[in-house]
Amino acid sequence: MYRFSHKDLLGMEQLSVSDINMILDTADTFMEISSRDIKKVPTLRGKSVISFFYEPSTRTKASFEMAAKRLSADTISLSARDSSMGKGETLIDTARNLQAMNPDIIILGHPSSGAPHLLARYVDAGVINAGDGTHEHPSQALLDLFTIRKKKGRIKGLRVVIIGDIAHSRVARSNIIGLRKMGAELTISGPPTMIPADAESLGVKVVLDPAKALKGKDVIMILRIQLERQSGTLFPSLREYSLVFGLNTELTKGAKKDVIIMHPGPINRGVEITGDLADGPSSVILDQVRNGVAVRMALLYLLIGGGRFDNLG
Amino acid sequence: MYRFSHKDLLGMEQLSVSDINMILDTADTFMEISSRDIKKVPTLRGKSVISFFYEPSTRTKASFEMAAKRLSADTISLSARDSSMGKGETLIDTARNLQAMNPDIIILGHPSSGAPHLLARYVDAGVINAGDGTHEHPSQALLDLFTIRKKKGRIKGLRVVIIGDIAHSRVARSNIIGLRKMGAELTISGPPTMIPADAESLGVKVVLDPAKALKGKDVIMILRIQLERQSGTLFPSLREYSLVFGLNTELTKGAKKDVIIMHPGPINRGVEITGDLADGPSSVILDQVRNGVAVRMALLYLLIGGGRFDNLG
Amino acid sequence: MYRFSHKDLLGMEQLSVSDINMILDTADTFMEISSRDIKKVPTLRGKSVISFFYEPSTRTKASFEMAAKRLSADTISLSARDSSMGKGETLIDTARNLQAMNPDIIILGHPSSGAPHLLARYVDAGVINAGDGTHEHPSQALLDLFTIRKKKGRIKGLRVVIIGDIAHSRVARSNIIGLRKMGAELTISGPPTMIPADAESLGVKVVLDPAKALKGKDVIMILRIQLERQSGTLFPSLREYSLVFGLNTELTKGAKKDVIIMHPGPINRGVEITGDLADGPSSVILDQVRNGVAVRMALLYLLIGGGRFDNLG
Repeated sequence: MYRFSHKDLLGMEQLSVSDINMILDTADTFMEISSRDIKKVPTLRGKSVISFFYEPSTRTKASFEMAAKRLSADTISLSARDSSMGKGETLIDTARNLQAMNPDIIILGHPSSGAPHLLARYVDAGVINAGDGTHEHPSQALLDLFTIRKKKGRIKGLRVVIIGDIAHSRVARSNIIGLRKMGAELTISGPPTMIPADAESLGVKVVLDPAKALKGKDVIMILRIQLERQSGTLFPSLREYSLVFGLNTELTKGAKKDVIIMHPGPINRGVEITGDLADGPSSVILDQVRNGVAVRMALLYLLIGGGRFDNLG
Repeated sequence: MYRFSHKDLLGMEQLSVSDINMILDTADTFMEISSRDIKKVPTLRGKSVISFFYEPSTRTKASFEMAAKRLSADTISLSARDSSMGKGETLIDTARNLQAMNPDIIILGHPSSGAPHLLARYVDAGVINAGDGTHEHPSQALLDLFTIRKKKGRIKGLRVVIIGDIAHSRVARSNIIGLRKMGAELTISGPPTMIPADAESLGVKVVLDPAKALKGKDVIMILRIQLERQSGTLFPSLREYSLVFGLNTELTKGAKKDVIIMHPGPINRGVEITGDLADGPSSVILDQVRNGVAVRMALLYLLIGGGRFDNLG
Repeated sequence: MYRFSHKDLLGMEQLSVSDINMILDTADTFMEISSRDIKKVPTLRGKSVISFFYEPSTRTKASFEMAAKRLSADTISLSARDSSMGKGETLIDTARNLQAMNPDIIILGHPSSGAPHLLARYVDAGVINAGDGTHEHPSQALLDLFTIRKKKGRIKGLRVVIIGDIAHSRVARSNIIGLRKMGAELTISGPPTMIPADAESLGVKVVLDPAKALKGKDVIMILRIQLERQSGTLFPSLREYSLVFGLNTELTKGAKKDVIIMHPGPINRGVEITGDLADGPSSVILDQVRNGVAVRMALLYLLIGGGRFDNLG
């Protein structure tokens, strides 16, 4: 019989189809709790969750904290800024120090790819990768999968396109792995400088022209342009990016009638997507945020307690 | 029959006399809880409170958090610093994102006047204005009213003077509205550059000479001078401000014997008030802080639960 | 009959041998709770703990917060950065303001020696000194004593050496006082510029040569070199410090076979201690972190509740 048996959530890479289904099913159960009058269950009472972010990531951090609190876990939030942790000492020493406080879960956001994997080797606590450099951001991909399944009833066989800076996006990478595992048909689009060299080997189709890439799609996933970092290096100008790859009503006409439009947030209105599309009936951007809390509750629950608990409250 | 029926607390402007009385009466009940051995009631268990401050405001934030925790609500604290929230995205997008996490209350401190009003239109959660630019700071005014009522037994008919930078102070504005509604007789005083042009239309008397302004008063409310911002623009020098408008024992002699002296804190000793007055028997400055927690408990309780709860624990 | 009767923990100076034994015994009881499946007892439910750090101190802060949460206390965390608290106002005003919120305990970390003592005089709440300038850091010394007692079965009569910047270290000062009270035989070693002038009057032996200082010792306590501050002023270069005073396997050979090696963290590998020693079987560095949570639970428990509680959960 299947049993969720991971200590850590390091990436979509490590999850089987059964694991993913288990996470999405558990999140379904937790969706209901967040809509209750009393949004709290005692499931993880007396469990300790440390969130440790080396880079600002307000949304992801808040979503995980909300999830932990709704499960009655205790949360401690550490920041690497102004802290000897992560500055004066190696990540391994930091890991061992955190472990010594005996937490059940450590949620790590880190600018270096692979940091959570290193951490996980040195701690008994479960480690959740909340974004490591340009590598993976699995909880985002899982909430995206959850949102797609909820809206479309399935993932398998859906035609999905991801548009933006695929090569440098951990959201894209995690989604590509997850969507492929779950049997979606995947196309990516963006400026050539933003398409990974090994795209085809990932099992995705590359279509540079966004109009063609969108054609007949069930799901459009837009990536955020990092205004502060990318302008002028990977493409000539924001304006040019926006003119060619910015999603607008005209462009989406080639997609299916009931297409859903996704974005990990925060959105740059008028850059990678127009305001009216972001706010329109096809957009599920706020569903993604809402679902994020439930998916993260599921992750904490499965990693800490797994099958040991009988009820979810 | 009267029933508190506001979704939000945006300003004193929106509150009726009955609303204000209800808040102060409820705060009276909560005062007792903060003096118990176990300073906690389960009233708001399972409710989520997000505090979101775009500017540093340690005291107000701590007071609200203490209030929320004593009512057993879960609190999530967001800061706009280093955050994409409020930087890369519009306030409306931030609002929608916060709402998607399904909080019961959002406490917003913001440098722009009107920001909480905008937020309130886009979220189902109750919004508490914890200070918006130079506009309003209603929870401060309510704790001031509570303190006056507690010390004087009533507000109606009391003679109150506010001294300082009336024109640029949200504390002054909220207090003027609240005190007028509750029937106090109001005088303001300060350098001409700090008196609002429309003062008389607010129903207050302007008396520039502080000695005359203080005469026969029951309550003196001193405003904080923002050392870092105001010196040299609105008045020639701190020393000059202090010589003319700084409250000292000599100056208060014209006021009533049982006058109370108020200040929203933090105080600049020797600038807007002398140390011995701030620490003296007429000062109720620390009562204000103490009462602040109870008043904020009342606000959270009334906005989240209102008449739906039968007991306050 | 003995009864722990302190309102505050300001330093090792104020503690009697009975007090220290009581704290260590209580911590023993709490060690067990941190290893339970449900790491939480309701002992301090409804109690409020404010932590207020004027300087970054992530580890100490996290350890205290973890301790407070495992005892079910409510925690409010204030930071002096960007805050009017501690900037625009005097420490005494800050103290009175904190007190007005009616906390049970205030944990203060402050760059000025004596700050917690001042605070304690102005608040009814218990004050815990979490490090004041170069003066004391008593919770660190207590967790060090706890670790020694746990490893060696006793403190009295043990031969302990402390190596590093004794003169400017609050960890060293608190440990010297505590170890002397508990009857350990104490030696200190380090560059002459780092040895306090009054060393002998503290009841410790000064041996500048580290090889000689280590001879026959049961416990080696290494201090952290503040890389950012000390290099070039108190000693010619890091490299030189490390060559002479950096602990390595060769150097420890003179110590007892079953010597334990301690460090308050975070460690600078290759500077004051080599990596293999820090990770080796004699090192108890991570035990110190682990024990820290239990010792801080004991402190919160004794200061807030003391003998009034019948059981520890």
